[in-house]
Amino acid sequence: MSPRRRQWALSDASQRARQERALNSLYGLAEDIYTQLDKGRIPQMAIPLRTKSNISFDEKKGVWKYGKGRGQRSAKKLRGAKMLLRTLHVLGFIKGMIDGDRSSTLRELYYISEGWDIAKFSTQDESNLLAEDLEILTGSLREDFRLRPEEDGARVLGDLTLEEVTRRGDPKRFNCKDDVGDSGYGIPFNVEEEKLRLLDCDADFVLAVETGGMFDRLVENRFDEDARAILVHVKGQPARATRRFLKRLSENMGLDCVTFCDGDPWSFRIYASIAYGAIKTAHISEYLATPTASFLGITASDILNYRLPSDDLSPQDVKALQDIRSDPRFNDPFWKDEVTLMLDIGKKAEQQALAKYGLDFVTETYLPEKLAALGVLG
Amino acid sequence: MSPRRRQWALSDASQRARQERALNSLYGLAEDIYTQLDKGRIPQMAIPLRTKSNISFDEKKGVWKYGKGRGQRSAKKLRGAKMLLRTLHVLGFIKGMIDGDRSSTLRELYYISEGWDIAKFSTQDESNLLAEDLEILTGSLREDFRLRPEEDGARVLGDLTLEEVTRRGDPKRFNCKDDVGDSGYGIPFNVEEEKLRLLDCDADFVLAVETGGMFDRLVENRFDEDARAILVHVKGQPARATRRFLKRLSENMGLDCVTFCDGDPWSFRIYASIAYGAIKTAHISEYLATPTASFLGITASDILNYRLPSDDLSPQDVKALQDIRSDPRFNDPFWKDEVTLMLDIGKKAEQQALAKYGLDFVTETYLPEKLAALGVLG
Repeated sequence: MSPRRRQWALSDASQRARQERALNSLYGLAEDIYTQLDKGRIPQMAIPLRTKSNISFDEKKGVWKYGKGRGQRSAKKLRGAKMLLRTLHVLGFIKGMIDGDRSSTLRELYYISEGWDIAKFSTQDESNLLAEDLEILTGSLREDFRLRPEEDGARVLGDLTLEEVTRRGDPKRFNCKDDVGDSGYGIPFNVEEEKLRLLDCDADFVLAVETGGMFDRLVENRFDEDARAILVHVKGQPARATRRFLKRLSENMGLDCVTFCDGDPWSFRIYASIAYGAIKTAHISEYLATPTASFLGITASDILNYRLPSDDLSPQDVKALQDIRSDPRFNDPFWKDEVTLMLDIGKKAEQQALAKYGLDFVTETYLPEKLAALGVLG
Repeated sequence: MSPRRRQWALSDASQRARQERALNSLYGLAEDIYTQLDKGRIPQMAIPLRTKSNISFDEKKGVWKYGKGRGQRSAKKLRGAKMLLRTLHVLGFIKGMIDGDRSSTLRELYYISEGWDIAKFSTQDESNLLAEDLEILTGSLREDFRLRPEEDGARVLGDLTLEEVTRRGDPKRFNCKDDVGDSGYGIPFNVEEEKLRLLDCDADFVLAVETGGMFDRLVENRFDEDARAILVHVKGQPARATRRFLKRLSENMGLDCVTFCDGDPWSFRIYASIAYGAIKTAHISEYLATPTASFLGITASDILNYRLPSDDLSPQDVKALQDIRSDPRFNDPFWKDEVTLMLDIGKKAEQQALAKYGLDFVTETYLPEKLAALGVLG
């Protein structure tokens, strides 16, 4: 066993405490409304403003967060009254799921509301927003409320041993190299400790890979073994479970997180959502973001240095790059230089463009060189 | 062990024969061009016309096929000469991959051509089309040429035992119920016999499910166990590997294949691509299509019978439904009635709309009723 092998275990107690806190905070919300009604008041609920002006970048923690702005949702008006009624229905539904050890998708929640008469949601946006409101109000995660998204989780391949509590309640142990096929281990939609325990890892870093084609290339070339890497296919803009999984790998297993994406502004945003969090989920950035994550490539410099096949930037690309320039998440010399250079040369490139030099160039030359420059390998 | 349990094994011989045939047919193509050059002729290559007029629906086999129309690709013109040169480069590249036991994505093939000087592809469409041309010319599969798509394969959950030959060359055995997490077994991009062997199956049918939300619902409700089903998440329009996998389950394991999709014209096309093949892959319909597959729902009748939450058809939906009316694949009473009814009521519905009646309605009421009507259950 390598001396770099890392072990980690967390007591169940903190986990149970989190679950109980989620349930208690939901009771608290219901109680609050009940008390107001009991005192003959028109009930209302204070909710943090989710406007752009109430979001700021926490320089210290390196993530997006909500500010202190609050709005009132009151039953005085029909719209507000309906939202409070819906909130109470949702609380009841969530309690039922926790009691029955069930879960549901956000879309199912929307359709479930068909049975709530005048409280039914008019669009899925409404029910999604309410789920986020509850996260903000309670400081708990949607996953604690047993609500899950539609998105598919990541695929993982590498020497990582974990234990998944399957639907039967049995903990099942997987080594993500020895106990899986070439498609890797598919992470479930809930990657919290009560569902997924990270047990053991014999690797030096995590490589979060944007495209399936590149993930499969690295698997075929056995880069996980040669470079002592855990490969994670993030499937484009990563799902919540994927971001949370990367964070846990980084935090609990002490692994460096390196992102390897296409070289265009949309891929830079994939990196930003992994490293700094997204505006939409600013209330839970601390759960989802991995501020120590680094961006390996493809950069504008790579396009020049490796003479990569490239495409012209579209007007949308240029606009997105200009937006990035004013985005506080990208406010550092590395990004300033790279974004300016990309605008100068007017080119973007895909990660698979490295195949210009053959199928092994990425694993034998490009990744080792870039990882050494980041101080991760070498 | 249930009497319905099915076992199946295929001799390696037919497999090796297929691999050799693929390689030989590639040599044949190169030899043909060499011979023409040797005789002082301007080389040319006859390729089946891939126009709509040269595609017809084979009523007997129930799949799309190419007709006898052929076009000549001659080196007389610069464009044709370049295509022949590219073809020879691709043949060499494929031979190298087969010799080295490697594979590459279609996108990598495109970038690899950067090293071919004037023979390099100008767009990825060109290289994709050439890969399909080679399939048509040789009667082999792209997978035999070690070319794979970007798409992710399906997730599988149920009592199916298979053996995957992993990248190390070791056969690894998985039971898709006992040896996987809740995300299921992820099928690799190549599901041919040399990569994936179906060994044993204790189930009565395969349920191909369109959305991840519904797949997870059926997994949570343990529908695979209760209904003796193999659940396959086809992820929207299914990848080639997914369609081939469904066909192999149906043919080799003797399982009924039932598709469970949203109720809209785009989902009807998912069914059609599973059951009858797609126009784009008409040359390999016999490998990919499962003509015995049936469509379970959501149908227009379901929207009425189960009073499902629905949305209005968009103008694009109406246009797509009208196209389906003239599509020979849908030329039967069931589809005529359902498409007419959907146009009449002007509504579509998602499969998760069944949550209107709670999280168990789909597994306790809807699926049993519909499967009984199809004669699959009950």
